[in-house]
Amino acid sequence: FFETQPQAVRLYLLYNHWLLVVLLYFFIIVNLLLAVVEQPALLPVPTWASMLVELVCLSVFSGRLVHYAKVIPRDKFWKDPKNLCILVILLLTLVDMIIYGALKATDIYSVRWSRVFRPLLLVNFTEGRQLRRAFRSIRNALPQILSVFLLFIFSILIFSLMALKLFGKRGLKTNSGKPYFTNFLEIVFDLYVLVTTANSPDIMMPAYNASSFFAVFFVIFILINTYIFMSVFLAVVYNNYKKYLKEEVRQLVRTKRHKMVRAFAILQERREGLEEPVVSHASWNQLVRLVQADLSHAHRELLWSVADQHNQGYIGKLAFVQLADLLNIQVIAVKSRPHPLQRWSPSLYLSTPSRWLCRAVQHRVFVMVYDVIILVNAVFIGLDEEDPLIRNSEWFFLALYLLEILLKLYAMEPRAFYSRHNFWNWFDTIIIVSALVATIINTAMTSVGGYSSRQILDIVFTLRVLRLIRVVDSIKRFRVIINTLIKIGPTMLTFAQLIIVVYYIFAMVGMELFQGRIQFFDSDSPGKHSCGNPALQDSSFAQLNYCKNNFNNVVSSFILLVELTVVNQWHVLSSGFTAVTHPSARLFFILFHIIVVIIIINIFVAFVLEAFFVEYTLEKSLLHTSLEKRIQELG
Amino acid sequence: FFETQPQAVRLYLLYNHWLLVVLLYFFIIVNLLLAVVEQPALLPVPTWASMLVELVCLSVFSGRLVHYAKVIPRDKFWKDPKNLCILVILLLTLVDMIIYGALKATDIYSVRWSRVFRPLLLVNFTEGRQLRRAFRSIRNALPQILSVFLLFIFSILIFSLMALKLFGKRGLKTNSGKPYFTNFLEIVFDLYVLVTTANSPDIMMPAYNASSFFAVFFVIFILINTYIFMSVFLAVVYNNYKKYLKEEVRQLVRTKRHKMVRAFAILQERREGLEEPVVSHASWNQLVRLVQADLSHAHRELLWSVADQHNQGYIGKLAFVQLADLLNIQVIAVKSRPHPLQRWSPSLYLSTPSRWLCRAVQHRVFVMVYDVIILVNAVFIGLDEEDPLIRNSEWFFLALYLLEILLKLYAMEPRAFYSRHNFWNWFDTIIIVSALVATIINTAMTSVGGYSSRQILDIVFTLRVLRLIRVVDSIKRFRVIINTLIKIGPTMLTFAQLIIVVYYIFAMVGMELFQGRIQFFDSDSPGKHSCGNPALQDSSFAQLNYCKNNFNNVVSSFILLVELTVVNQWHVLSSGFTAVTHPSARLFFILFHIIVVIIIINIFVAFVLEAFFVEYTLEKSLLHTSLEKRIQELG
Repeated sequence: FFETQPQAVRLYLLYNHWLLVVLLYFFIIVNLLLAVVEQPALLPVPTWASMLVELVCLSVFSGRLVHYAKVIPRDKFWKDPKNLCILVILLLTLVDMIIYGALKATDIYSVRWSRVFRPLLLVNFTEGRQLRRAFRSIRNALPQILSVFLLFIFSILIFSLMALKLFGKRGLKTNSGKPYFTNFLEIVFDLYVLVTTANSPDIMMPAYNASSFFAVFFVIFILINTYIFMSVFLAVVYNNYKKYLKEEVRQLVRTKRHKMVRAFAILQERREGLEEPVVSHASWNQLVRLVQADLSHAHRELLWSVADQHNQGYIGKLAFVQLADLLNIQVIAVKSRPHPLQRWSPSLYLSTPSRWLCRAVQHRVFVMVYDVIILVNAVFIGLDEEDPLIRNSEWFFLALYLLEILLKLYAMEPRAFYSRHNFWNWFDTIIIVSALVATIINTAMTSVGGYSSRQILDIVFTLRVLRLIRVVDSIKRFRVIINTLIKIGPTMLTFAQLIIVVYYIFAMVGMELFQGRIQFFDSDSPGKHSCGNPALQDSSFAQLNYCKNNFNNVVSSFILLVELTVVNQWHVLSSGFTAVTHPSARLFFILFHIIVVIIIINIFVAFVLEAFFVEYTLEKSLLHTSLEKRIQELG
Repeated sequence: FFETQPQAVRLYLLYNHWLLVVLLYFFIIVNLLLAVVEQPALLPVPTWASMLVELVCLSVFSGRLVHYAKVIPRDKFWKDPKNLCILVILLLTLVDMIIYGALKATDIYSVRWSRVFRPLLLVNFTEGRQLRRAFRSIRNALPQILSVFLLFIFSILIFSLMALKLFGKRGLKTNSGKPYFTNFLEIVFDLYVLVTTANSPDIMMPAYNASSFFAVFFVIFILINTYIFMSVFLAVVYNNYKKYLKEEVRQLVRTKRHKMVRAFAILQERREGLEEPVVSHASWNQLVRLVQADLSHAHRELLWSVADQHNQGYIGKLAFVQLADLLNIQVIAVKSRPHPLQRWSPSLYLSTPSRWLCRAVQHRVFVMVYDVIILVNAVFIGLDEEDPLIRNSEWFFLALYLLEILLKLYAMEPRAFYSRHNFWNWFDTIIIVSALVATIINTAMTSVGGYSSRQILDIVFTLRVLRLIRVVDSIKRFRVIINTLIKIGPTMLTFAQLIIVVYYIFAMVGMELFQGRIQFFDSDSPGKHSCGNPALQDSSFAQLNYCKNNFNNVVSSFILLVELTVVNQWHVLSSGFTAVTHPSARLFFILFHIIVVIIIINIFVAFVLEAFFVEYTLEKSLLHTSLEKRIQELG
């Protein structure tokens, strides 16, 4: 794929330098965060300032693209859709900025439509490989999803027609006194909402109150549309996800093997008496040192001894190709380093009371004692903070937790204690040290100024409660689940990016459509009960106090989109926006539901399911085993 | 397993006679339906009458049990937990009936507690094998579900404690003016409801209105508990379901093979020149005719020719054991019988215009023309019924549909047209003939009495709309999905039984706990706006007009339980029942949510997922292929 001249390789190495990558991410985030300061803004700044920052971002992106173009052959560059996509986005953004600037200068209302494309940069830069895979997976699932979706819409239309004929002429009224099921399009929307269960059982009550038999209609509707169709959507999305994932993994393995074979062709040498070309220990060593500089000598030797099973001093093609996989296996180097205190004063650290203390700290009872302390602490946290006894007990508990950490540090070698794999030790120390700092600041402020800051108190309380989580680690059956969850954490970040991309696009569109139409008043103002818009007078949107759920800036937009993702009451939320604009605004909310809830959330569920199944059926790979065997042999 | 004396076999055949099985199901249903006439009754009858019917049911069940005891060896009978279970239920029911009768006679309030066990009879009689498998699958998944559940509860408790500390002292008020997040147990319940998303975003609004930062708390809560934990529940249930299903299938195959080997041992004979014993064609024929009497001679010969690949006149053990699998493969015998009209008047039926008509009916254009007719009909149905033109157009469409069926019957052999696999032909005919009959009755009643019955009109409308479904069959991409859904239909019946068992138990308990406390008034009566209970005055339960969602009889109980299964507004529904009884009544609703939504619905989803995956990856089995090959060879 890449050029192989020395200069090109140097450029490539520079392209992948961590500083440049971090810089790129920084500018992508800055570019996305511009929404905070642009109209409608959370923190308004002059238009020229935000445009200037955007120009800087655009030039950084262009530079990155040019850099990439130098690294790979020209025809490869132009064949790759992601480069074209970036180029088009950059050009469109530039055009949009010029138009917007010109219109703004002549005081004409204009829309920054290119903001919708910003998150696509996050998708299309090389670093977003995982994210692109997720998008490809969605794209491939679309035809099948579409079939099911059309059938699902057909089913809703049929049920709506039936509802119109059954209930339309009965003169029934909804709870708010409106005519019940008389307009076909309204029925379709109401039944779509019923599929999401958001208006159950309210939508059924007028018919049910008229006759119990009508409940049958709604029960069948929910069974078919909510239970069966929604499960089928999950099945289709999941099936495509699995199929596509398998295909991707297979392709990755094939590419990796192909590249390793090419690397072998470069490094290979002929030995006398051997038919096949081989790679010597020396050049292998050089390669590994180049690829993974931070590998210890012992670790490297271990890997070599696995590859070179018969101690011949060279390896063949087959063993060489395995190298990449070998490097991927994490070997935890347990260095039985002596404790610093032992080096400082061996006689004291190795004395009988000290040894006894170390053994006590590592004993099961020690863990149990601290579990009890945590539970007692939980009760104290739950009690009223005003009581001075309770307030002062906090110092006692903090001291106990600090003592625990110190004792553990005494018994264990500090660097082993804080090694990368000891998630809970890190968690403990950070939480307790922060709690200590926050409590001290809080007490200092109280004793000096006589009042305590609400923000600092909030942090103190949160840290105090978070401390309790530690109890989970000492129960084995929980540990397995937690570990699986921690393991799928990094991949969940891909989903976080995916959802941010979609949210960002919807937020931008939503802000242009609905900004300023619904307002939230903190104090008692005349418009408070209608969200500052007469169209919302006496609407359930205003009555339920939803005024703060608006598109007036990017933060409230995101929170509103989260609420829409949770689905409940989404019909009430959308009714507010249709009331202040036009009934067709519903399409925005329906589209959001289809894309986020039906497609993306299902992918998320499929992903969690798959991660757990893999966890349940995980067996060590062959290579893993051969490495372990070798370690055992070497002792 | 079973006795093999001739008398025992005769008893066994009698035990499995379809009449006795139907009778058993009939009495199980009667026993379950007793809830309709018992207190609190939908149709009240004297207590002695319902008790008499129940006694009859009990004696039928006892008879069945005794019959079963005669069929299988005594020690096997007593070792089987399901027999013991039936016995205990029968005895407990008898004891309960005696106590209830005695207390009733002395006018003391008493509870028919044994009604809870009734649905367990449905589970434990041999015929409910599928259902028992589902229950076993749940039981095996329980330990793993419990681990996740405890962790989930722990997470809710931690978040509740944090919410108490963060929001409790801020003096916030909910929308209805109550203090916000001040009582720990209330917070736990509110956050549990938030996991089900039923009170989102209302529960968040007071905190969010106070500060946008608090939204972070709720977003993290929903992410962890609603999305991650609920997906993990699905993963655990699904994983166990798959594992257990595989184990069951493996055991079934093993048992079947074992039994076939025993059958072979009985039928085997030695032939000269052969080391292995074999089964001759004659005894094989006799066996198949005994086991499956309705198999045609041609079909039997076909199967034999598959088993006896080399035409030797006998088969070995291996080929014999396959017999059961061979019999399971459905071979659709396409009998190219001549059309009855052809037999009646060959010259007419085979004339050129007649042949042309037949070809036209089977042409693609014919189908398309009728699809257009259906769409036009859909528009006409949607229009106003009052218009005489629209009303009379119904006759025109009915005539067109009838014509279609008659034309198809003319072109195709009737018995082939109505064969078991032509789902849509059956569907069409039934819907259109019923619509015709209902429309005629309706018109007759209108012209005679001058008014049309609402009930008959409802049926007419429903049938008219159902007719439109047919359009789905002519679109190929829909047909695949529909066929999968139809295929999983029978297994879905198992779930219907499962859910009825659970609903019945909850309905019985709910009726004893809450009967008569919430009342529905159809007409305007003083108690209408408080559901006849002062405790519900101004409650959201009464305001939302939920009075008919009560436990006053078995039908409303079931509908209420369906609403609780759909989840939305379940906290409002449960708040009504806690208001009229005691806050601990919430436990009933939480328990229902855990059992039905977290466990059973997830099994349902797992089941639909699995069915679709199997459908997507289905490949014909080896045996299937060999049968097909044979059919091709035979031409």
